[in-house]
Amino acid sequence: MRQLTTKLKCNTRGRGLYDITQEVTRWVAASGMSTGLLTLYIQHTSASLMINENYDPDVLTDMQAFFDRLVPDGDPMFIHTAEGRDDMPAHVRSALTQVNLSIPLIDSKLALGIWQGLFVFEHRLHPYTRHVVLHLLGG
Amino acid sequence: MRQLTTKLKCNTRGRGLYDITQEVTRWVAASGMSTGLLTLYIQHTSASLMINENYDPDVLTDMQAFFDRLVPDGDPMFIHTAEGRDDMPAHVRSALTQVNLSIPLIDSKLALGIWQGLFVFEHRLHPYTRHVVLHLLGG
Amino acid sequence: MRQLTTKLKCNTRGRGLYDITQEVTRWVAASGMSTGLLTLYIQHTSASLMINENYDPDVLTDMQAFFDRLVPDGDPMFIHTAEGRDDMPAHVRSALTQVNLSIPLIDSKLALGIWQGLFVFEHRLHPYTRHVVLHLLGG
Repeated sequence: MRQLTTKLKCNTRGRGLYDITQEVTRWVAASGMSTGLLTLYIQHTSASLMINENYDPDVLTDMQAFFDRLVPDGDPMFIHTAEGRDDMPAHVRSALTQVNLSIPLIDSKLALGIWQGLFVFEHRLHPYTRHVVLHLLGG
Repeated sequence: MRQLTTKLKCNTRGRGLYDITQEVTRWVAASGMSTGLLTLYIQHTSASLMINENYDPDVLTDMQAFFDRLVPDGDPMFIHTAEGRDDMPAHVRSALTQVNLSIPLIDSKLALGIWQGLFVFEHRLHPYTRHVVLHLLGG
Repeated sequence: MRQLTTKLKCNTRGRGLYDITQEVTRWVAASGMSTGLLTLYIQHTSASLMINENYDPDVLTDMQAFFDRLVPDGDPMFIHTAEGRDDMPAHVRSALTQVNLSIPLIDSKLALGIWQGLFVFEHRLHPYTRHVVLHLLGG
């Protein structure tokens, strides 16, 4: 059994969901491992990770709309406002979604379901470079 | 150190929480491992995983009621409606809960707390066959 | 490759976020491992784990305020009330956050981002002793 790690860069262009499935599956395939465990870890507190439907882009629009309504920008309840109206909502949205994901590798393929895609969920309004650490353990 | 994998089928009977603790702990016990890491991974975007109280069934009723109110079926905000009034809410509920869980194995037992159970959380109204991949790594 | 496990105790003093970053990073450093995977697992259903901003304490205040509004104590919808007005809300808050976290270890350091801290999120109003299992796998 052995371990491999790398770090992906995701250049976001404002709030929204960014599909990183291809980049991740290519890196896993290049490892040559057949059975293992992949961990994704995002090193930020205002962007997060999500596995969700990757077929109809309307799903991503609706997902964004739901979080916009649930955790509104500029909510007068928030006192941490120095970094912008969208900063504290970004921390809350990160808390409600995922900082890390774990996906088994079986028969040389990630165990993603047919409709599952891997996304970086950018919660800030402006573009950022987001870093996702990948750790693969297996044989 | 070695790896074992399997896939559980969970036949749901409509929206709700389905306890899979026994099935999972039996499979782990049969592995004969004493220390390790168990990963559960659900291959769907309209059902998810949850660890929660397994004693009072009222907790499951209340949990369901909370999500029904937070992410209502047929919300007029949603544009992804072709698959039913309960489909986009199911994706959101999945996003707010878990696609994967990681549980250490210590002294040949999963490190579950006394009151913790493992559940498949079906978010659709109709029955489905849900697949949960188990990956166990240890020795 | 080898495995190490331990259990941390976190004595909470009522609802709020408790930083366990130092205690966790010290234990990982003492392992002498350079590459690996750390899993944190909390053995409770009314306290959870969270990775979030560790710099401005206002973020923790706002995070708490958001969850207090989203899942109010004594919500008349809840029927599981025998253990107190804050018990069912605690289960829901746990469901919306994390029971487990996975963090890669690279170059002998956890891959935490600069602003990321590890927190126990106590959801009950009274003090409790909370147990967090740590599992480290690597070499």
